Amino acid sequence: MKRTYFAIAVLSMSVLLGALLTAAAPAQTPPVISPDVHADKSVTFRFRAPNNKEVAVIVEGAPKPLAMQKDDQGVWSVTTEPLAPDYYGYTIIADGVGLFDPSNHTVKPNFLVRASELHVPGPASLPWEIGTVPHGEIHHHFYKSVVVGDDRDYYVYTPPGYDARGKQTYPVLYLLHGFSDDASAWTAVGRANVILDNLIAQGKAKPMLVVMPLGYGAPEVLLPNSGVWRDPAITQRNFDKFREALLTEVIPRVEGEYLAAKDRNSRAVAGLSMGGSESLLTGLNTLDKFGWIGAFSSGGITEEFDKEFPALDPKSAEQLHLLWIACGTDDRLIDINRKFRGWLASKNIKHVDIETPGAHTWMVWRRNLTEFSALLFR
Amino acid sequence: MKRTYFAIAVLSMSVLLGALLTAAAPAQTPPVISPDVHADKSVTFRFRAPNNKEVAVIVEGAPKPLAMQKDDQGVWSVTTEPLAPDYYGYTIIADGVGLFDPSNHTVKPNFLVRASELHVPGPASLPWEIGTVPHGEIHHHFYKSVVVGDDRDYYVYTPPGYDARGKQTYPVLYLLHGFSDDASAWTAVGRANVILDNLIAQGKAKPMLVVMPLGYGAPEVLLPNSGVWRDPAITQRNFDKFREALLTEVIPRVEGEYLAAKDRNSRAVAGLSMGGSESLLTGLNTLDKFGWIGAFSSGGITEEFDKEFPALDPKSAEQLHLLWIACGTDDRLIDINRKFRGWLASKNIKHVDIETPGAHTWMVWRRNLTEFSALLFR
Repeated sequence: MKRTYFAIAVLSMSVLLGALLTAAAPAQTPPVISPDVHADKSVTFRFRAPNNKEVAVIVEGAPKPLAMQKDDQGVWSVTTEPLAPDYYGYTIIADGVGLFDPSNHTVKPNFLVRASELHVPGPASLPWEIGTVPHGEIHHHFYKSVVVGDDRDYYVYTPPGYDARGKQTYPVLYLLHGFSDDASAWTAVGRANVILDNLIAQGKAKPMLVVMPLGYGAPEVLLPNSGVWRDPAITQRNFDKFREALLTEVIPRVEGEYLAAKDRNSRAVAGLSMGGSESLLTGLNTLDKFGWIGAFSSGGITEEFDKEFPALDPKSAEQLHLLWIACGTDDRLIDINRKFRGWLASKNIKHVDIETPGAHTWMVWRRNLTEFSALLFR
Repeated sequence: MKRTYFAIAVLSMSVLLGALLTAAAPAQTPPVISPDVHADKSVTFRFRAPNNKEVAVIVEGAPKPLAMQKDDQGVWSVTTEPLAPDYYGYTIIADGVGLFDPSNHTVKPNFLVRASELHVPGPASLPWEIGTVPHGEIHHHFYKSVVVGDDRDYYVYTPPGYDARGKQTYPVLYLLHGFSDDASAWTAVGRANVILDNLIAQGKAKPMLVVMPLGYGAPEVLLPNSGVWRDPAITQRNFDKFREALLTEVIPRVEGEYLAAKDRNSRAVAGLSMGGSESLLTGLNTLDKFGWIGAFSSGGITEEFDKEFPALDPKSAEQLHLLWIACGTDDRLIDINRKFRGWLASKNIKHVDIETPGAHTWMVWRRNLTEFSALLFR
């Protein structure tokens, strides 16, 4: 039988695919395998670049870049110590330029950072490993934002067994990404859907909807050299317009379409980094709408907490079921988070202080989500 | 007011983000802007690589790679002729290695090819441009395939106004990607949801569900040097197991969850390249289930058409509402598609011959989908 079509097809699959398959693995050289996870969980990164002078790899959470060495084939490589099972972002730095690993098809969505994804597999007991459990679904929504003035999107996770034709309503967690992320970050990188699938199957989390909106009220914060975080006006607009879009556009859309419980006791807001601050600014200033608040490694607000949270006082705060403030002890934002928690304490506002190992990384935030989501709606 | 948090946050956002933002735009050099679309629709590609010897860019559909020139800052660049408004994939080839453009955050999902996305904007009349029209939703589903033996996914587009709580049922188009694509290709690259949103708003297409499954029955076809297309056994298994998974796993799940019409007159199957062949092999051999079939630039089946389509005869083929066979005239698969159409004609099987300008590219397939979907379910 002739099986020649696809040889032809691959060659003809546009100059792009044809040349790329060739470029990716020249006939005379073996394909570059990277990342290469070994039995002992050490990982070898490889990158073909015969003429580069200096190549290194930055692995998420590692204290410093790992220098790579070039072999006589022009392939640079380095092998790590054994790594804890997890998902890690990493970036090849070739003569000072950050690159995706061309040998790896899994990339992290991000507006500013180019990072590929490394999976060091672990036991099924790890909450981010896909388990033999029922899976929820991820719904991608598109709309024109009048508040911000752009076309944007948000994602909604529905738990296993969710039936839009049913009567049961579900509590809702609004889960916010960090600066430079896009709206897919919490599922594509944070694996929120896998974590919730597993926790729900184990009875550790209540079945809930998780809504993941785009977190920018002023999208120009993403422009190169916008200097946004030194410009109070842009920063303020970014937070204010995000909050307005969430409250007046996203929440009404979600509650109109999904079987969502619509009382403050059934509404939580949490996020990481910029999204942590957005969760605090939105939640603590809108206590009539949110009963549960989580802030993971948050930053971006000023130290003038009285001005940032004008609506917050011990009496109103009594309505809160949970105010959960977490940060990794190796994160430079730990000091600011401690200051904020000190301010809350000085005002006798009940909250939970969480300090964990780790830096400003997704390894910390996946664990934060695992712990926080298990506490919700009890 | 102190706005220092986020300066700190960006620095501390793991060694990864901190170093990357630095690496992406060293303080002493301006950030590299690429791709840079000019008013006349010409495009400048740029890539910082001071020590590379040869850098080129391959643009989807272009006859050959474009050589880039290095300036005294170590930045390589080239400017194209004005390009027709469209979405193009492109890849930087640095000393023979295909790379994503590190200055561009939009990448094309693909298991084998690293390509970034270029958008040359055009008028709202272009079907793939986001219009001021109601938008449908994209639903991402995950399940364990017993047929193939892996955890896999599929996507479902629901048209604007779809109400799971309603009574109306919708016809369903099963839309299949090509070799090397993943299940998100038809939306992320093919913009199927945008095209359907626009056609439906204009009354040019009937509101329909579009189901986009993972197209591999034998996932090992994706392994480097699997030589799959020269191995009849793997190729056969890839097609057979895909078909079995579609008919016994995906379709029952979709029809159980969505308001899908369940008769052959309301079921279409179409795809590109490998997916075009899968559409023919599945549709023409299962005429009791599909009334509408489309094959775009298809390849991968043998020339022994009588053996590939044992269930097909002129009598049974009379049940078909549409058999639509398209290919670009610059695609090397045009000859095979002409042969196949000739075989259909020799058996007096009614079909539509479509030959368009273009090669084996998404520019062709977006237009194929636009034309084909408008004909469905009439």
